[in-house]
Amino acid sequence: MTSTLPLAVSIGDPAGVGPELIARIYAERKQLSLPPFAVCGGAAVLTAAAEKIGLPFQTERIADPREAQKVFAGALPVIGTFDGEYTPGTPTTAGAQLSLDSLHYAIALATGTRASGLVTAPVAKSAIAAIDPGFIGQTERLAEACDLPHEASVMMLAGPSLKTVPMTVHCALADVSGLLTRDLIVDRTRIVARAMRTDYGIAHPRIALAGLNPHAGEDGRMGREEIDIIAPAIAALRTEGIDATGPHPADTLFATHKRGSYDVAIAMYHDQALVPLKALEFDEGVNVTLGLPIVRTSPDHGTAFDIAGQGIARANAMIAAIRMAGEIAARRAQTS
Amino acid sequence: MTSTLPLAVSIGDPAGVGPELIARIYAERKQLSLPPFAVCGGAAVLTAAAEKIGLPFQTERIADPREAQKVFAGALPVIGTFDGEYTPGTPTTAGAQLSLDSLHYAIALATGTRASGLVTAPVAKSAIAAIDPGFIGQTERLAEACDLPHEASVMMLAGPSLKTVPMTVHCALADVSGLLTRDLIVDRTRIVARAMRTDYGIAHPRIALAGLNPHAGEDGRMGREEIDIIAPAIAALRTEGIDATGPHPADTLFATHKRGSYDVAIAMYHDQALVPLKALEFDEGVNVTLGLPIVRTSPDHGTAFDIAGQGIARANAMIAAIRMAGEIAARRAQTS
Repeated sequence: MTSTLPLAVSIGDPAGVGPELIARIYAERKQLSLPPFAVCGGAAVLTAAAEKIGLPFQTERIADPREAQKVFAGALPVIGTFDGEYTPGTPTTAGAQLSLDSLHYAIALATGTRASGLVTAPVAKSAIAAIDPGFIGQTERLAEACDLPHEASVMMLAGPSLKTVPMTVHCALADVSGLLTRDLIVDRTRIVARAMRTDYGIAHPRIALAGLNPHAGEDGRMGREEIDIIAPAIAALRTEGIDATGPHPADTLFATHKRGSYDVAIAMYHDQALVPLKALEFDEGVNVTLGLPIVRTSPDHGTAFDIAGQGIARANAMIAAIRMAGEIAARRAQTS
Repeated sequence: MTSTLPLAVSIGDPAGVGPELIARIYAERKQLSLPPFAVCGGAAVLTAAAEKIGLPFQTERIADPREAQKVFAGALPVIGTFDGEYTPGTPTTAGAQLSLDSLHYAIALATGTRASGLVTAPVAKSAIAAIDPGFIGQTERLAEACDLPHEASVMMLAGPSLKTVPMTVHCALADVSGLLTRDLIVDRTRIVARAMRTDYGIAHPRIALAGLNPHAGEDGRMGREEIDIIAPAIAALRTEGIDATGPHPADTLFATHKRGSYDVAIAMYHDQALVPLKALEFDEGVNVTLGLPIVRTSPDHGTAFDIAGQGIARANAMIAAIRMAGEIAARRAQTS
């Protein structure tokens, strides 16, 4: 009966754009034909956010996620009674606590198979870390909740015309070369290949790996990581039957005529993936967590405290995140 | 009488797409309303390239560049009798020599104020270096011909919606951090600021500098180059009255809504500039040499040996290069 389970949506930092985006998206649920979702906590925050931007809006507290589908047509289902104050643009410690509670509740629903998947609104990482020093990020917390090491999960950024995965993420650029290893690339690309099949229904995913250096190093003239690390990783992946190609020069890999030649591009560092994604489809990027037993997506933008409460934040990424989580959950339910 | 001078176009490697692009663009000169140009050498190569792709085409040898304007309406003016064989897709040593001769001739015209500017078709750098070991690249050769150090010139990539300049270019990514200095950024950004005024007529150019690290280092948590090098360079530039801002997180700097907020983006390394440029406007990128007394542009693509002679290479970048060289030359002529 997983098909009757809703997506669990965490509210994000109540001083950010999360609450108003959720309220706006709920208001347009019919035109958008979105799968039913339930927000974890924050009913008063959501109502206040909707009021602030002049939206007609109603929430309904539910106790069991299975009620969400029935409730969804008439009111936004909220599960969990914890709540807070709506303080757009002014982050508070209580707000960070609410965002953490909401996240934990949503994770609990998803890991307990009481939600079909998880969509997380943006939080302020450092504010949460101040009250929960072990907190690195939502994705890491998710892996911990699944009893898996952080390396089990892989972050993918997905827009309408580009899916891309950075091999290294939040480290100084000067440290990237030292962090890249053949095993890292093989392990993470394997996770990506599997997820392309299970989550996106692509039987034989074409995976293009970028080089690290300009022109992919030009045969070692500008760096040897392509020769020593990336090419051997690709060779190993290919022996496993994974359609991995490259290392491709990064500058042309994201050009329009190349994007059709692969299903996902593996980048070697944060900005190699994020620069083209945001240049091409800033408003629609979804952050998808691959490799975990639970489905999780998130809009690829931050709390945007500076514009919160003004009704001007664009909802496209959050809409895409909800839609993609629904699609992945449906595909997994079908094939499991 | 500089207004009667043509642009000098070097033919590029005769095994690449240069000759056919020049022939095609010449054939469409009226619809494109391009400024008159003369090709340096290679009349037989151009004719063969035009024939290969079925274009009606005529060249006319001229001895003095000032004849170009008159000739241009009826035939493509070619100056210089050196020539070669048309071998599309099959680079040869003789072809590399022709491309070098054509470049040198075009440089001589431009530095001798017998051409209003220089547009270079793509060459095979390593093939030229094999016959001329001192050859690093066309831009470096140009600076040498102007009796200037290589650092006097700055490469800018310009497309319809983005102008961007990488501070470091053809080096391993791991070496970028060590090559970045405050002085390098200040010196090169000064050249850019001056060129925006003289070459693009932007009186108060807005110059946005990218950070090196993810999220521009997040206050030093992921690298200190922003704090130690880039921010001090920006401060120094601002005391000179240059409207420099940043360091901006690179991932959002190239997003649509940000591109309108600056006239030129300064990137810290090759792919930080080239990835967004080619993702956004692959076919129309122009490589502009700033900081030299002579005007020089080039299409931002290579020889494309793999598709040469098939008539499928897109001419947009070469057209944009010719147009931009004409515009810069006209602006400089006006203000000098």
